[in-house]
Amino acid sequence: MWKYKTPGISDENFERSESVPITKEEVRVIQISKARLNPGNIVYDIGCGSGSISVEAAIQIENTGKVFAVDFDPKAIELTKKNLLKFNLSNVTVIAGNAKEKISELPQADAIFIGGTGGDTKDIVKLCFDKLKPNARIVIGVILIETLFSVLKTIDDLGFGSIDITQVTISKSRKTSTGTMMLARNPVTVISATKK
Amino acid sequence: MWKYKTPGISDENFERSESVPITKEEVRVIQISKARLNPGNIVYDIGCGSGSISVEAAIQIENTGKVFAVDFDPKAIELTKKNLLKFNLSNVTVIAGNAKEKISELPQADAIFIGGTGGDTKDIVKLCFDKLKPNARIVIGVILIETLFSVLKTIDDLGFGSIDITQVTISKSRKTSTGTMMLARNPVTVISATKK
Repeated sequence: MWKYKTPGISDENFERSESVPITKEEVRVIQISKARLNPGNIVYDIGCGSGSISVEAAIQIENTGKVFAVDFDPKAIELTKKNLLKFNLSNVTVIAGNAKEKISELPQADAIFIGGTGGDTKDIVKLCFDKLKPNARIVIGVILIETLFSVLKTIDDLGFGSIDITQVTISKSRKTSTGTMMLARNPVTVISATKK
Repeated sequence: MWKYKTPGISDENFERSESVPITKEEVRVIQISKARLNPGNIVYDIGCGSGSISVEAAIQIENTGKVFAVDFDPKAIELTKKNLLKFNLSNVTVIAGNAKEKISELPQADAIFIGGTGGDTKDIVKLCFDKLKPNARIVIGVILIETLFSVLKTIDDLGFGSIDITQVTISKSRKTSTGTMMLARNPVTVISATKK
């Protein structure tokens, strides 16, 4: 359970697994904020991984909203289900399978998160475009340079508005025997845009 | 007006002034998340600058909560008032003056933000400690190395728990005549902790 209104659940509150990625707290709150959520929203979390975005989004959109969490990795699906149980959430539908096939079955969306998608991000952005309601938001977390380049071109070509590209680099402190050092994490680029 | 539940108001939605600092969108949402706000909370925004943190906090804590925004710069006070008007917020009390004198008059707090404080950050953290309820949160945005060092020591000495030190470095895209470049902003360190 998360007893606060604001997003930003600590990473250690989630069930974790070494083989399944998690969108970490600070990048996650930036992504959630870029989606501009409201109660009642329909949200997709494509490449949900550990489900941390699904959990935060589900809390924000409340019981009148619905999250569809999709991943092709059975271990991600299992972990997402564990986290939904842990946070006592019943407004998330978890879908195992290839997002490119599953998206067509989903209702029109108010916000779509796209994370790790095994190289298909460009195609998934195109499929999502048709599913977004007018003024709906897309938020894409990108690690690879190749994905950044192709997604940026796709977003431009599809005619999205209010395109924002934010690179986020987080360092976290660690106590050593003699003081406090900062440990760098890899930069994540968050692309967000509005469907016109 | 901000019509979304999630924090993350775009910087361009705020009234701005060249001489008054603003906590920019991405660092602001991280700070808001670290404060773990709920409706009804009592919140201080010490060194409120343009008032962007006060605005976001006031929305999250709703009309049952109260923000006290303090700054010694009359231009910051004026700008904060403009932004409160712009976002139609009536649950923020704006206080002009030296935070070290004004804090004693305020009610016990659930969350305290400390921003630019003209070199007095360490003393202000000490005064705030006595004003925080048990389990209340302190969130300090730091630019200067000297402030980072002294605040960290103060937070440790006062016996705060769950101390988190996060350095945030944001780059934003800019279109050039030939493509898209990333423009770096200065790193900001966000220290947050819980009063035991």
